[in-house]
Amino acid sequence: MRLLRAHISRLERGLVEISASNRPELSQQDGFVHAGVMATLADNAAGYASLSLLPPGSRVLAVEFKLSFIRPAVGQAIRARGKIRKLGKTIALCEIEVETRRHGKWVSCAWGSETVYCDILKSQEGVKIARLD
Amino acid sequence: MRLLRAHISRLERGLVEISASNRPELSQQDGFVHAGVMATLADNAAGYASLSLLPPGSRVLAVEFKLSFIRPAVGQAIRARGKIRKLGKTIALCEIEVETRRHGKWVSCAWGSETVYCDILKSQEGVKIARLD
Amino acid sequence: MRLLRAHISRLERGLVEISASNRPELSQQDGFVHAGVMATLADNAAGYASLSLLPPGSRVLAVEFKLSFIRPAVGQAIRARGKIRKLGKTIALCEIEVETRRHGKWVSCAWGSETVYCDILKSQEGVKIARLD
Amino acid sequence: MRLLRAHISRLERGLVEISASNRPELSQQDGFVHAGVMATLADNAAGYASLSLLPPGSRVLAVEFKLSFIRPAVGQAIRARGKIRKLGKTIALCEIEVETRRHGKWVSCAWGSETVYCDILKSQEGVKIARLD
Repeated sequence: MRLLRAHISRLERGLVEISASNRPELSQQDGFVHAGVMATLADNAAGYASLSLLPPGSRVLAVEFKLSFIRPAVGQAIRARGKIRKLGKTIALCEIEVETRRHGKWVSCAWGSETVYCDILKSQEGVKIARLD
Repeated sequence: MRLLRAHISRLERGLVEISASNRPELSQQDGFVHAGVMATLADNAAGYASLSLLPPGSRVLAVEFKLSFIRPAVGQAIRARGKIRKLGKTIALCEIEVETRRHGKWVSCAWGSETVYCDILKSQEGVKIARLD
Repeated sequence: MRLLRAHISRLERGLVEISASNRPELSQQDGFVHAGVMATLADNAAGYASLSLLPPGSRVLAVEFKLSFIRPAVGQAIRARGKIRKLGKTIALCEIEVETRRHGKWVSCAWGSETVYCDILKSQEGVKIARLD
Repeated sequence: MRLLRAHISRLERGLVEISASNRPELSQQDGFVHAGVMATLADNAAGYASLSLLPPGSRVLAVEFKLSFIRPAVGQAIRARGKIRKLGKTIALCEIEVETRRHGKWVSCAWGSETVYCDILKSQEGVKIARLD
């Protein structure tokens, strides 16, 4: 996060957005934001989105992620969103999306999913997992 | 690549490895190399592995990638390998793997695949695509 | 489709649903609809959703698909939906979802994506691809 | 398995192959074996490959799978192979591949991965999980 100078720009139960300004160092040979940078932001967003539903002290670990690249990622700013679609007993499925801002408008550049393993801290009063549905 | 201080450590037709020293900035909260860093290196390796089979001047673009995380990525060094499994007329399928070196031994930490779109430069003498099989 | 006794139950530009009655032959060892049956229906829905945006005579081919299994697929009926998220010059990205009906309510059981290669028939008057956005 | 008339043709610790004869009912519009049929066989192979390493009475469930289609699946016979790459405490990662036989030779048509959730039966003498490495 520090290397990319990113910060959490939206935080709800089961939904987290992470934003960063675009910089030349984040781009690949064609001037587009590097796929790996998008993956890094998306993975962070997925992890925090999972944590937002778990009791304090819980930990998360990415099992796998998949990202499809829809459009060249150009623009002044970039943001990634993680949205939990299903939280099970140990596994969360998170939808991930990356957008860039061009001429004041956010445009989707990458979209996919992440499977997150949730190591849920069980408090003495029992597990308190936020319910999604 | 510069941000991660990575370099190409192996280059064959259809197989490329990219290596970097591990540094605290590349790690997430638990001291493991960040999933996004592994994805960045793997995506680069997949792109170069594709280019290694195409005529000079061709360009590549990631369509999608998927990475499964097998073990915590700890160690002094990290490397990612892209190996082309199939090169079609416009699409290449690349196997990707990320390893870290612990106590002098390389251990697999992440494994998956990347679909690469190949914008092949057609020379006047016709396309010269390296044959894989 | 015939083997699964499935039919198209919804057809819009960029969105197709395929439905079937559940039968014992479609289930695996635990009585849930088999993952492969869900994949078959989802793949069909993705293909038709792509075709719904292309000129007549075009052909589609799955490049890859990924499906995450969210809940056990039990119920009297099953349906799969393909929804195009992006149609490029040769590649479409389709969101896929599979639901089962339990006690009169549709419940999401699997969710993922499919990359579709579109072999677009170019008519004499030029390509007429439906615009999504 | 019965609907596809498939049978286990190879069974080792961590590696299972499932085979079937090709039939017109298994094909899609172009005469190729349907992507969903390949997915069904591959998913079965992945499940059995996982079970082959677990104590009797254990159960497995697909978390997600991803399959890339490499070549048109034509031929007299089809087989799918699941090979475990990593078996963790609750999650197995399985490499999956589907081949068809043409003119007496097996040709790879689809390749990918499956994440399998392992509900391991703990016997009174403690868990006995086969070690892969």
